[in-house]
Order: sequence, then structure tokens, then C-alpha cells
Amino acid sequence: MKKDNRKGMKLKVMCLGGIQEIGKNMTVLEYGEDIVVIDCGMGFPDEDMPGVDLVIPDVSYLVENAHKIRGILITHGHEDHIGAVPYILQQIHAPIYGTRLSLGIIEGKLDEYPSPTEPELYTVEAGDVVSLGVFKAEFIHVNHSIADACAIAIRTPVGTVFHTGDFKIDVSPIDGHMIDLTRIGEIGKEGVTLLLCESTNAERAGFTPSERAVGSSLERIFAQYEDRRLIIATFSSNVHRVQQIIDTSYRHGRKVAVLGRSMINVIGAAAELGYMELPDGVLIDVNEMKRYKPEEITLITTGSQGEPMSALYRIAYSEHDKVKLTSKDVVVLSAHAIPGNEKLVGRIINALVRNGVKVVNDSVEDVHVSGHACREEIKLLIGLLRPKYFMPIHGEYRHLYANKDIAEFMGIPSENIFVPDLGRVLELDKKRAGFASEVQAGHVLVDGAGVGDIGSVVLRDRKHLAEDGLVVVVATIDNGLIISGPDIVSRGFVYVKESEELMRGVKAVAMQSIERILSKRINDWAHIKNIIRDDLAKYIYRETKRKPMILPIIMDI
Amino acid sequence: MKKDNRKGMKLKVMCLGGIQEIGKNMTVLEYGEDIVVIDCGMGFPDEDMPGVDLVIPDVSYLVENAHKIRGILITHGHEDHIGAVPYILQQIHAPIYGTRLSLGIIEGKLDEYPSPTEPELYTVEAGDVVSLGVFKAEFIHVNHSIADACAIAIRTPVGTVFHTGDFKIDVSPIDGHMIDLTRIGEIGKEGVTLLLCESTNAERAGFTPSERAVGSSLERIFAQYEDRRLIIATFSSNVHRVQQIIDTSYRHGRKVAVLGRSMINVIGAAAELGYMELPDGVLIDVNEMKRYKPEEITLITTGSQGEPMSALYRIAYSEHDKVKLTSKDVVVLSAHAIPGNEKLVGRIINALVRNGVKVVNDSVEDVHVSGHACREEIKLLIGLLRPKYFMPIHGEYRHLYANKDIAEFMGIPSENIFVPDLGRVLELDKKRAGFASEVQAGHVLVDGAGVGDIGSVVLRDRKHLAEDGLVVVVATIDNGLIISGPDIVSRGFVYVKESEELMRGVKAVAMQSIERILSKRINDWAHIKNIIRDDLAKYIYRETKRKPMILPIIMDI
Repeated sequence: MKKDNRKGMKLKVMCLGGIQEIGKNMTVLEYGEDIVVIDCGMGFPDEDMPGVDLVIPDVSYLVENAHKIRGILITHGHEDHIGAVPYILQQIHAPIYGTRLSLGIIEGKLDEYPSPTEPELYTVEAGDVVSLGVFKAEFIHVNHSIADACAIAIRTPVGTVFHTGDFKIDVSPIDGHMIDLTRIGEIGKEGVTLLLCESTNAERAGFTPSERAVGSSLERIFAQYEDRRLIIATFSSNVHRVQQIIDTSYRHGRKVAVLGRSMINVIGAAAELGYMELPDGVLIDVNEMKRYKPEEITLITTGSQGEPMSALYRIAYSEHDKVKLTSKDVVVLSAHAIPGNEKLVGRIINALVRNGVKVVNDSVEDVHVSGHACREEIKLLIGLLRPKYFMPIHGEYRHLYANKDIAEFMGIPSENIFVPDLGRVLELDKKRAGFASEVQAGHVLVDGAGVGDIGSVVLRDRKHLAEDGLVVVVATIDNGLIISGPDIVSRGFVYVKESEELMRGVKAVAMQSIERILSKRINDWAHIKNIIRDDLAKYIYRETKRKPMILPIIMDI
Repeated sequence: MKKDNRKGMKLKVMCLGGIQEIGKNMTVLEYGEDIVVIDCGMGFPDEDMPGVDLVIPDVSYLVENAHKIRGILITHGHEDHIGAVPYILQQIHAPIYGTRLSLGIIEGKLDEYPSPTEPELYTVEAGDVVSLGVFKAEFIHVNHSIADACAIAIRTPVGTVFHTGDFKIDVSPIDGHMIDLTRIGEIGKEGVTLLLCESTNAERAGFTPSERAVGSSLERIFAQYEDRRLIIATFSSNVHRVQQIIDTSYRHGRKVAVLGRSMINVIGAAAELGYMELPDGVLIDVNEMKRYKPEEITLITTGSQGEPMSALYRIAYSEHDKVKLTSKDVVVLSAHAIPGNEKLVGRIINALVRNGVKVVNDSVEDVHVSGHACREEIKLLIGLLRPKYFMPIHGEYRHLYANKDIAEFMGIPSENIFVPDLGRVLELDKKRAGFASEVQAGHVLVDGAGVGDIGSVVLRDRKHLAEDGLVVVVATIDNGLIISGPDIVSRGFVYVKESEELMRGVKAVAMQSIERILSKRINDWAHIKNIIRDDLAKYIYRETKRKPMILPIIMDI
């Protein structure tokens, strides 16, 4: 695609961040001297990133263009949309715009990980319009599994770009505020150039049920188990879910005790900010539980993903000092296992049933609904917005391509649909759109206090060490003679005590190898180490069919 | 429970092997001087067993009682029921009884990993009865996702023990042989003391669909995509599934090419043994594909679980030298992700759709059915057998307890249901049953050529190395003076080049630490290493918030 030089500038749209899921953590719009960033989230490491705590977007491009950044817009307060804010603010300074709950959660993070400059946080409400250079961003209320979620319509010199954020269409949401389809329809009538649409559930047919469906299931469960204590685990950020559990408990004359640091924090903050209503006296401290019969108590807890050391995990493994399970307990997992967590969730269920506990999960009752739009909802949104161009975002490739199919079904020509890749830049003017260039993009791994000091070499070494362990060979050499060693130290390789013969063999091979090197008067250290490594690797593989990492250390006096 | 000393002996029933799934890999029956073993399978390692290739049962108890073992009975030829045979035959010698296909697969394994004594393999057919000391074992035909699967009814001095193996009730199986419900009913009429019943699908309501349902789906897919090449991935051991794919291809005028070593082997063996019928000329070599149009070809391949380096994996990542994907290809995943494989399967789908390929899996079409009985089938079996005692086997605890619920629903008193644990011994006489003792049981880890030389210490070290990497400190000491070093070598910790300051700090701390030790004339090597380790750990944690493994090596001349 040629640049339109008469008109000059184009709008650039690019996705930064996201590990398997593209366009999830961060989207960037650029026009001339102005940049706006939408969301600033983190990802959780894959199993091939051992020791990594979290993954944040590589924002090199933003650092290079820091002077252009007019603001970071936050669609909602989930970690994958806000979790990188404290890290990114170390690298760039930019004002942040979001709704009250989103900014409240960000503030909590900035307390723990302060920004080098005073952060500028600006609270917006759905309906507000923020001017950011050439851009005007309008926040639009949507339904999602966290309160106060928004889509964002951005007026640009080449037309309106609509970013859905995460959304579903809930016609009977707990807070009474349905997604603002009217406003979305009005924006559609004005004309939309580009729709950036989330793809999480693009493979799922139909409509996602209303959050209220969970209420009906809870009602049945409370009636069925009226003579038993109920322990309900869910996501702490799902304020409406927690509200329903509390309301149902209250109606059934139960007191509610809350377990898990994040759950306690969120309920406190949500009640204070007005996102949750707590009937008088319904909440009790965990220590007060003994004053009530088991069937008068609901416990709300974290750990619905089987997270080790969460409250539910400690309860299931009899490690919780306040809550002991009995065979009269019923545990409700009001959540669905996030892909990759299936085994962890399975294990916690195994531990619970071994205690004689009844477990109710979403395969038995509708105790969970998704927060994301299914196919029919995406179609409805496309029908209202009728965008000229379509970019599926927020999903693995399978979801992005499924969303592309939906857009095609809705009549958007295939050539007007752009499936993004990290760092690939879509350029638009009033007439054309197409991928035109690439910027640096990818992941930065965070391990402990270190941001970005873990890379592919370190990960490869960690995997190698994990698979086969380590053999260290040390010898001290003086004037062409071995004066100490070779000593062999191994970790993660074999039980040394049961493999004494093998270790003696390793030592003998190392000795021969070093003596051969010394007799040949080889002086190149890298070469010497390679010879020792090769000799030992061959011997060890022949004896054990294993390939431990071999680390020769030769000390010369 | 007290021993019945008048009558003397009791029947002992115990489960050995199985990682998360109890009673899966091996069940043992013992009466007086006779032991029979049912199945001899392997497990795949959990993600907390890095580098482990496979897991076999700890058969210490059988080794101690080797003189009692009358035989190993094989229910069917899946890895989790036969995979440990070559390893166990290293430790005990026993005749093995199984159907033709099961023994054929075992023979293949014994070719690769020969037994120290000549293995005795005895082929049986459904209906055969084998006498083994006091025991008489009758093989009974059942349906499952591999051909030639059997349940086993064992007559013992305390009554009949019925072991289901893995089963489903398929009223329209591909080979025409329905599970022998009549014989099962007759055995039930004679009276069953104990039913050992598999639990895999005990959480699932209803009936498992017939294998033939997959045929209907294939028919629809072949019709819908008649103008495109079809690539179908499934389990190589599912001979009937492969047969259906071949038959459907033949009916639609397609040639079939087979990819993947295990798929080629199984189709060859199954055709030779008569488990599969290949219409004349339907199979072609992969190299012949170019003589046909894409829409005239079906490719059958391994890799339905997303296994790295499987044929489908190499195709998806454009690494296969014979098969290149085009956007006209349709890939059918005729399988369901085994728990723990969800992410691998997801990744291969992502790779496929990025090539523009259409992917059809079991969320879109009924291209897979389970080989295990759902709740109604288990009920039917219990209804026919009416056992006095019930032991759910073959499942995680959640499945075992769900199966217990089914048995209770069918009227078996709760106190007559025994949920097993590894090594726990159920003792029965004609009047009573109860858990009475325990024997050594558990897992033996196999890594490369090493069987059992990997244990908890080695795994803990591997996990530590994987999470945080390694720092080696080496110094040579002579007469209380450092004459070389300390040298610092790290792997899997940080990018050394970008962390020079940190590594200088580590070296300085190590130097101080060693000098302090030398000045105090400490001679205890373990103590010296602990001091260095502690000093460095503190420094490194303060600087990086990480806890690498620290390996001090001090060489004394």
C-alpha cells in the first residue's frame, strides 16, 4: 500500500503485549504527533517460562515516542488490562483515564510499586469525552465480569475507531445498568471506520447468559443444602457475583464470612466506593463463626482457580487455621477454570472430595457465566456499528480467526478485516487501510525485582536444568598440572548416593579429558571447556540416556 | 476389622500405581499363596516432575512376594494398562494373559526393551477362563476406544470379583461386537462379591454415544468439504476410528495417506491381525500424493493431543517435508484434549488457523466420542451385576467419589463401598470386607535409561533450578589463603552481560565471606559452604528478590 502523500498522515493502529492472546494487554493509536494507549495489562507466564512472575508488554516503541503520548485509557480493572501500569510508568509518564473502580485498583498497585513521577489519574464516567491531541475518546458503558467496564469510541482525523474492551450484553445485570446499546447504535449511525472487537468467546455459539442466571442457581443450591455450611469460591474482582452470594445468604438467614486477602480487600473497597451493598450485620469475622451453626454460615473465598496458597487451597489441604472441613460442608466453585488451570482446579476438587465434601461446580450447576460476548452478541454489536474495517483483538489466533468469520458473516468484506500480530501496524486514511510496517513489540519478563533481565537464553538454561539437572566439573591447574580436582558436583541429575559408580566414572572421564588437554598444551579456555563438556556428555548419555547441563570450571593459578 | 481366624484366609485386593488416578495402572488380588495382577500400566509425569519420561508402579510388594504371582492379566492394550510391562518384567517373572491385540502391542515393546527372562505371553479370547492357583479368571468382551478390550471376572474362594477394565456400552460398535451384557448378567445372577468399576466418566450424565456417531459426523464433514484436502488427526490406537476415516474416504473416492510412526505401525499391525479392513488401493504412500488433486486425498495423522514433534505438529509449524498447508486444507481433530494437554492442543489450533486452515474439533462437530462409560452405563452394569461390595477404581478422587455416589444410588449401602488409596489393602471373607492394612506402593520415575534413580530430592532441585537458576562460586584455597577465585558462574539466573554490576557484587560478597571464614580458621566444610551460601543468598535476594540455587565449591590443595 502506497502512502497518500497529498493528504499526508495516516492513522496507525497497533497491538503491543499479550502472550498467546494478541491485542489483549495494550492497543496503540497514533496520528502525527499524538499517541493514545488503550489498556496497559500484564499476562501470566506460560509453562515454558519457569520462575517468571508476570509478563508485560515491550513498550520500546512508546519510550521512543514518549513525547507524543497524550494518555493511557483504561477500559476496566482486570489484571490483563491494568496490571502493567506500575511497570510502564517507570518507563514513560502519561496521564491515565479510567472509571472509578479501575483507577481505585490501579492506585492500590501504585502504592506497592510507586511511580518515579507523580502519577496523574483522571476519573471518568461512561458518557465522558476526553480530548487527547487530535483524538477525542468517549467512554461507553458495557457489561463485563467486573463493574464499571467501558468500551471506548475514539474520534480520529480518519473517522471513528471503536474499541470494545471486554464486553458482554447482559439485559439483566445485577447493578441494573445494561450495556449502552443505544449510544453504540448512535455511534454506528454516525459511521465507524474501524471496529476493534474482543474475540474471547468468538468460537462459542449463542448468547452468554446473564449474570443473574448465577443467582437462580445459587438459590437452588441454598435451598438444597439448607442444613449444611456453604463455602463459595469465586474471583474477587467479580463484585456482582459476590453481591449475589451475599444477597442470597442474607435471604436465607446466613451470615457471611470472607476469606482471602484479595477478597477482603475487594469487598471493602467495593462497598466503600458504592459498588456493593452490604445488608446490615450480614458480614461476620471468621473468628465469630463459632457462635453460629454451620448451616447459618456462608464462607466466600478466593482460590477458585486452584491457586496454591489461596484460602480455598489451604482449607482443602487442612492447612487453614480457622476453617476445618467436615463431611457436612458443600463447596461451590463459582468460576470456570482458565485455560492452563484445569489441573490445578482438578487437584483442589480431589482434595475436597477426599474430605467427604460435596463439590458443586459449573459442570453440575450454572454457578458461573462468562463475562465475554458469544457469537450472537458480537454479531449484534457489528450490526449496530456497521464498521468499514474490522480488527479482531483480545484472543488467541483461533479466536481472532473465529471472530473474522463472524465479521464476514455480517457482511464485512474479507479484505477489510485485519487479523493483527504483535507490533504489526495497520495504517488507515479516509480511503484505504492495510498493514504497512512493524514496530518493536513483544514481552518483557518480570522475575522478582528484575524487569527484562530474563530472556530466551536464561529461560533455555532453566528448562535444560529442569529437564536433566546439572553436573559441575571443577579443577585447579598450575603450570600445566592438575593440582586439585577434578571435583564433580551434581544437582537435579541422579541420587548421588545410589549412583556412586556413575559419579566415579564421570570423575575418571573428566580426569582423562583434562590430562589430554594439558598434554596437548591447548590454551584456549573456551576450547578446553568444550572438550571436557563433549567428553562428559558422551559418557553420561551412554550410561544414562540423559543430557544434563555440564559446567566445566577450570581455575588457573 | 478383626481377622477371621477360624476360617483363616482372606482375599486381599489392592491398587498399585496411578499418579492422580488411583487403581488405574495395576490392581492386585491375593489369597494365601496366590497372587494375580490385573494390568501393568504406566502414567505420564505431572508438570512437577520435570525431565521425567514416564511413571511406573512401585511393585516392591510384588517383588517380595514374587513366588506367589500366578499371572498378569491384561484388560486392553492402552499404555496406562500395559506400558509398564517391560519395566516390571525386569523385576519379576510372570506369565502374561491378554487378547491378541494387547499382546501384539506388548510384544512390540518387549522388542525395544527386552526382558531378562524369556517372556511368557498367552493369548486369550473373550470367553476364555484361565486357572491361576486358587483363582479362575474369565475374560469378557467390552467396548472401548481400542479393539479387543475385556473385563475380567475372577472366581476366588470368597466369591466372584468383577474388574471392568475400561469399558463403555456401545450398541452399534464398528466391529459389530457389542459388550457381552448377557454374560455379565449371568455372572451377576451367579452372584458377585466385589465389583471393581472404572470411574473416568462417573461425573458425566447419560450415555456415551456410540463410536458410530463419529461416522455420521465424518460423513457430514466429507460432504461439506468435498472440494478440499482433509487432514484428520486421531489416536493411533483407536483402530475403529481409523477404520471409519478410511471407509468414509473410500466412499467419497479419496485416497488415504498415513503420517506418523505410531499411526503407520498400528494400521499395519491391525490390518495384519484382522482388526482392520483396508479396501483395495485406498492407501497410498505420502510421496504419491502429488499424483492426486488435494480434494482426492485424506491424510490420517498423529498429533491430536498437540504433541510436539508429532506429524500434525510439524505440519502446523511448516516443518514437515512432505506436507505443506494451504488455505484450502481442513484439519479435523478427532479427539478430545486429555486433561493437562489443553494448552498444547490450543497452540496447534492457533498455528493451523494462522495458515488459513479450517479447523474442525469436537466443540464444532461430534468428531470424537469417549471410550468410557457415563453414569447411566455404570448404573446398568451395577444393575446387572448387583455386587455385594463396590470399589470405584481408575479415576482421580473426584471421579472415584462420583462413582461411589452412583453405587449408592443403585442401592449399595455406603458401608459396602470402598474408595481405594494406593497400597491400601481391602480384605474380604465370605461375611465381611474392610480396609485392613497397607503395603508399599507409589511411583517409580523413569528418566532416560534410569528407573527409580530420580526421587523427591532430585525433583526438588530440578524445580529450584527451573524457577530461579543457579550461581556457582568456586575458589581454590591453599594453607588458609585464597590462591584462585572466587569465580562466579551462573546459569538460568540473569543475563550476565546486562548484570555485570550484580555479578561484581556477588564476587565481592563471596570474597568477603571466604576471607572471614579463613580468618576464623573454620575447618568444617559443610559449615563453610553454609556460610558462603547464606551470605550470597541474602545479598542476591536483596538485589534481585530472587533465590537461585547457590553452589559453593571450595578446592583445597
